[in-house]
Amino acid sequence: MRQFMDDDFLLETRTAERLYHGHAEHLPIIDYHCAVHPRDIVEDRRFYHLTEAWVAEDPYKWRLMRTHGTPEKFVTGSATTPREKFQRFAEALSGAIGNPLYHWSHLELQRYFGIDWTLNSQTVEDIWETANEKLAEPNLSARGILRRFRVAVISTLEDAADPLIWTKQLQQTKDGLDTTVVPMMNMTNVLHIEDPDWGNYMQYDIGAAAGIEIMTMQDVRDALMKRIDFFHAAGCRTADHSLAYPVFAPAEEYELDDIVGKIVNGKDEATPEEAAKFQTALLAFLGHAYCKRNWVMQIHLGALYDNNSRFLAEIGRRAGFDCIGGYAHADGLVKLFNAMDLAESLPKLVLSSANPADRTMLATILDSFQGADMSGKLQLGGAWWFNQTKSGIEAQLTTLAEQQVLGDSIGMATEATTLFSYPRQEYFRRILCNFIGNLVERGEFPADFDDLGTIVENICYRNAAQYFGFALPEAYRN
Amino acid sequence: MRQFMDDDFLLETRTAERLYHGHAEHLPIIDYHCAVHPRDIVEDRRFYHLTEAWVAEDPYKWRLMRTHGTPEKFVTGSATTPREKFQRFAEALSGAIGNPLYHWSHLELQRYFGIDWTLNSQTVEDIWETANEKLAEPNLSARGILRRFRVAVISTLEDAADPLIWTKQLQQTKDGLDTTVVPMMNMTNVLHIEDPDWGNYMQYDIGAAAGIEIMTMQDVRDALMKRIDFFHAAGCRTADHSLAYPVFAPAEEYELDDIVGKIVNGKDEATPEEAAKFQTALLAFLGHAYCKRNWVMQIHLGALYDNNSRFLAEIGRRAGFDCIGGYAHADGLVKLFNAMDLAESLPKLVLSSANPADRTMLATILDSFQGADMSGKLQLGGAWWFNQTKSGIEAQLTTLAEQQVLGDSIGMATEATTLFSYPRQEYFRRILCNFIGNLVERGEFPADFDDLGTIVENICYRNAAQYFGFALPEAYRN
Amino acid sequence: MRQFMDDDFLLETRTAERLYHGHAEHLPIIDYHCAVHPRDIVEDRRFYHLTEAWVAEDPYKWRLMRTHGTPEKFVTGSATTPREKFQRFAEALSGAIGNPLYHWSHLELQRYFGIDWTLNSQTVEDIWETANEKLAEPNLSARGILRRFRVAVISTLEDAADPLIWTKQLQQTKDGLDTTVVPMMNMTNVLHIEDPDWGNYMQYDIGAAAGIEIMTMQDVRDALMKRIDFFHAAGCRTADHSLAYPVFAPAEEYELDDIVGKIVNGKDEATPEEAAKFQTALLAFLGHAYCKRNWVMQIHLGALYDNNSRFLAEIGRRAGFDCIGGYAHADGLVKLFNAMDLAESLPKLVLSSANPADRTMLATILDSFQGADMSGKLQLGGAWWFNQTKSGIEAQLTTLAEQQVLGDSIGMATEATTLFSYPRQEYFRRILCNFIGNLVERGEFPADFDDLGTIVENICYRNAAQYFGFALPEAYRN
Repeated sequence: MRQFMDDDFLLETRTAERLYHGHAEHLPIIDYHCAVHPRDIVEDRRFYHLTEAWVAEDPYKWRLMRTHGTPEKFVTGSATTPREKFQRFAEALSGAIGNPLYHWSHLELQRYFGIDWTLNSQTVEDIWETANEKLAEPNLSARGILRRFRVAVISTLEDAADPLIWTKQLQQTKDGLDTTVVPMMNMTNVLHIEDPDWGNYMQYDIGAAAGIEIMTMQDVRDALMKRIDFFHAAGCRTADHSLAYPVFAPAEEYELDDIVGKIVNGKDEATPEEAAKFQTALLAFLGHAYCKRNWVMQIHLGALYDNNSRFLAEIGRRAGFDCIGGYAHADGLVKLFNAMDLAESLPKLVLSSANPADRTMLATILDSFQGADMSGKLQLGGAWWFNQTKSGIEAQLTTLAEQQVLGDSIGMATEATTLFSYPRQEYFRRILCNFIGNLVERGEFPADFDDLGTIVENICYRNAAQYFGFALPEAYRN
Repeated sequence: MRQFMDDDFLLETRTAERLYHGHAEHLPIIDYHCAVHPRDIVEDRRFYHLTEAWVAEDPYKWRLMRTHGTPEKFVTGSATTPREKFQRFAEALSGAIGNPLYHWSHLELQRYFGIDWTLNSQTVEDIWETANEKLAEPNLSARGILRRFRVAVISTLEDAADPLIWTKQLQQTKDGLDTTVVPMMNMTNVLHIEDPDWGNYMQYDIGAAAGIEIMTMQDVRDALMKRIDFFHAAGCRTADHSLAYPVFAPAEEYELDDIVGKIVNGKDEATPEEAAKFQTALLAFLGHAYCKRNWVMQIHLGALYDNNSRFLAEIGRRAGFDCIGGYAHADGLVKLFNAMDLAESLPKLVLSSANPADRTMLATILDSFQGADMSGKLQLGGAWWFNQTKSGIEAQLTTLAEQQVLGDSIGMATEATTLFSYPRQEYFRRILCNFIGNLVERGEFPADFDDLGTIVENICYRNAAQYFGFALPEAYRN
Repeated sequence: MRQFMDDDFLLETRTAERLYHGHAEHLPIIDYHCAVHPRDIVEDRRFYHLTEAWVAEDPYKWRLMRTHGTPEKFVTGSATTPREKFQRFAEALSGAIGNPLYHWSHLELQRYFGIDWTLNSQTVEDIWETANEKLAEPNLSARGILRRFRVAVISTLEDAADPLIWTKQLQQTKDGLDTTVVPMMNMTNVLHIEDPDWGNYMQYDIGAAAGIEIMTMQDVRDALMKRIDFFHAAGCRTADHSLAYPVFAPAEEYELDDIVGKIVNGKDEATPEEAAKFQTALLAFLGHAYCKRNWVMQIHLGALYDNNSRFLAEIGRRAGFDCIGGYAHADGLVKLFNAMDLAESLPKLVLSSANPADRTMLATILDSFQGADMSGKLQLGGAWWFNQTKSGIEAQLTTLAEQQVLGDSIGMATEATTLFSYPRQEYFRRILCNFIGNLVERGEFPADFDDLGTIVENICYRNAAQYFGFALPEAYRN
């Protein structure tokens, strides 16, 4: 029997151990889709106790607590103590056998706090005390954490209208920081013309930021182009697009003008058909803009957000009440990508679905549009969100290996939701090394350790570095 | 090489053996969704030969025989002998390598008849003779079987209009019976207003049983409330709802009255839109009624029933001609559960789909509505029907572990179709112990055997006991 | 650690080794769905270099190269050398860890050329030289290859209007050829009335070949009946039908006449509803015709073809730009099969979907219509196309085992796309033996090696031989 989560956690073979410890373990991290706030880095934020660091800002953990029946006041409420919240989290975790949060939490205890005990009712008090003491040390400040985990780049999700104040402030005075912090441009709000807030958002956020009054489709394009250039200047090289499912609905310019005009004038809401026409035109335009700037388009399909109206009203958006949807993506994606390809507007693209049943299908859709002059131009996104589990990552790697060229993969975004999420990258790397190790040990790939080391390093770091083209910090160039 | 189906069948590690033999093996069974007929228990039914006991009433076995090309006269026909039917079943089984029926059948031979030979052409005659002799012994009567398998509770599926004569008779004179036999209220016929028989069913079955003439939606509610109270008094704590897919279609009361009135007056059939409106209103009403009584709502999605018209005419309903459907459940479920949650009418709920591709999605939908004051309020149903296989159960456990809190799971209903189905629970328990054993042996969960034993016992028995709140027999309280 | 791809490649246990080497390895091959051109066999085609043999006609390999970013001129282009193309393919392959092409390519090097080196930048030149020399030897001509791989039958896909010139020529002068070469009738073009070319195709291809002017639905049937008889006389015993998803839409004969008339007169295109009506009537008619002739109907669902318009224009159809689709098949299939069954027109049938998420569903749909007087009448098709991977084949075997009777399976068509594809059958057989070996080693099936050997031989060869009823060559009867 293996020790619980020791140095060789998840590494089942000698080959896996050798690949992980010899190649993957100490590579820098490029988190190309992350939710860390740059303000925390500007201010070199400190955390006062484990609940603030761990539980207070992490919807993954909230969700586990609710599933275990924890009353909301101990999850996101304020009428309790941090210590009590931590107690409740520990209780929920204790039965979560096989859950990635069980592993992530213990990796976090080990890597941030040097605590290698199991979190349970006997240890919870000691862990609370010990971790809180460690949090007072300088290497657990925001910048300390980025240094410790060798985070080369974070691409932080920022709304397309965002003034990027913190990012810019950080870039001006980054003394001693070895991490490139760039924004990722979130186009999601721009896409969702069916959202009742869209008209105001376009006028008073996007339009205002760009200095353009939005009346026609061309105004939308002009304003976004300004925003894209603004983000580009701040180092942005990738944009995000969340939608339940794609619809391909080409339209004439006058139709698009009618749709945009109707909404910004507050006359009506967009019908599903109008929304599809607008989205089709917008995505084509954006693809073209990204091609010109060598950006990467990220598309996240198949999730339903903020399903629980009661808690949406009480707590707000993105509070852990989301789910996987089930949609028929193929026809829409194929037509959309084909139109973009014909117009030479299909950029580098990372495509993900929240629904694991879509995975193999998406890989084959992408492979109908490869073939430009770079390897792995269209990437099947890493095991995203609900799929960021051991079996989800293994399934993802299997699809990448069997349908695409695994050696060309850009690996997995950490999708850090807080500064305490970096062990999720370790989790991925261990599973990757184990996956490759198993292939080699079973005689399914040659045991040439130079080649294997290169493949592992490429997937974990170098491919993403090259693919996105972020400016790497001095310390992590090689 | 392991011996064929020995004591450690499916237990690949020492930890798995220890968990199964030390904790799971002798736990009582709570079958919260079962098709055993209470009359068999009242009459302490005896079985005269292996074909009667094993083949005659089990559509799972019929289906295997048909797939092997067995002519129907040897499956459900009467122009043959029991011995010949058994012969044909044995022939079909012999090539069914990896089929759960192969394992179930041999577990049944071992556990009911003490026969540990393989069923094949050499042994079929001896097995027939030996098993038939054993069937004459008292411990293989209906009550003997329930005692031998430590069946604490069976919740037998009964139509919402059923007078529960046998259940009540049993409850009055249960001398020596250590099993709580309660009805499970089957709402499926009530739900399907699009069924041509619905009008008559509502008037002459539900309405008559409740003493209410059905003319409006409120009459439907009033009649069902009476039926729910009637079932509740008989110990019922859970109701079943089978539907292909949910649609959320809110409607005004007058619309619902029009729909119900039209159908009960035999004027017309319900359109799909009308059926959706009726079902939406009905499910909300039922959810509220279940909340008040602390019942568990079971929903079974994604199956298509009685697909083969020829055999439907010849043999009747539910004769092994059903299949998995493929539907887009997410939007409908999310809206339905959200509306129920807002109305404080979302009861404890067990949600299952026949389609394995839905599994992870359903778990995440449920987890958008957890968070009340009990753990595991909304349960992803166990590996149901076509998924009740080794790989299906393992996949189900993986989803439960990775998306929810495995330790809070209520395990798997045996879904006994006959009194000879109880080894299916053993099958589940062995796979569960092996699953947990593997996690522990790989260092993915601590090897604390007190904790592990508790988790296993909770999943196999205690969680269900607590969740459903059935009155447990004296012998099985602990 | 196992050696890379040695004699026991993919065979993880002693039982697997014994089953493969003792039973599966040397069995003849029946490729009941293949794309080899009979002209190559008539002419006993020779190949001049490895690129011609391996890369030039295989869209699987093109696709891998494009995913790796190989410019099209090195894939299908002509402005380069064969040696350069081979170089580019070797480069793409080197990072394709876990890809079936990695394994197939190395099996091909071993089995055709006796080369057991790994293909990489050090060996590429030597392999090029060595293989090209071997290609000059007689046993690597078309007929040499068929002999070497013990190919008993190939059923080559030919359009329903094809004159079968090469097949007939081959059958007249097959001196020394131990392979039965028969056509498989491709009905796909007939099915797709919504295709703009359909009217011309029916008039000038099908109609002309049958000597019938197509004006009504009955003309379509009459012409196809003639074509079916023509194919039957050439040894054809199976027909193929590719469609994205089935729709069941019964129609009156006059409606069908209107639809056919409208299209052949070039007045209009078929609406989706009209296409569904035509397809429903056509499939029912074809099923009846196949029943009469004891043919096998093959249905391939869920793929989208030729998605990339740019390359469709440049290179043509079926050039590696296809993908998996996602459709809701259940309702349409159930109604279609039920109507065919009621009309006694449901033939032997092999049903496949490109989408792995459909797999278990399709098995259960088929099992709603089994029960005739033969075992395994309705077969879940082997791991097809994008599923022809190690994990895809294992998943397929799991579904076959758990939902049907594995011992009745007809195994997997090689789906040879070129004469160099036969090791794909070896790949399947190794995975099958390993799958069964694991069940036996784990005690899940008895270790009776006579039974096991029979089961393996049946799945790999005998079941297909019997199921299709092809005339077997003398050498491979047993």
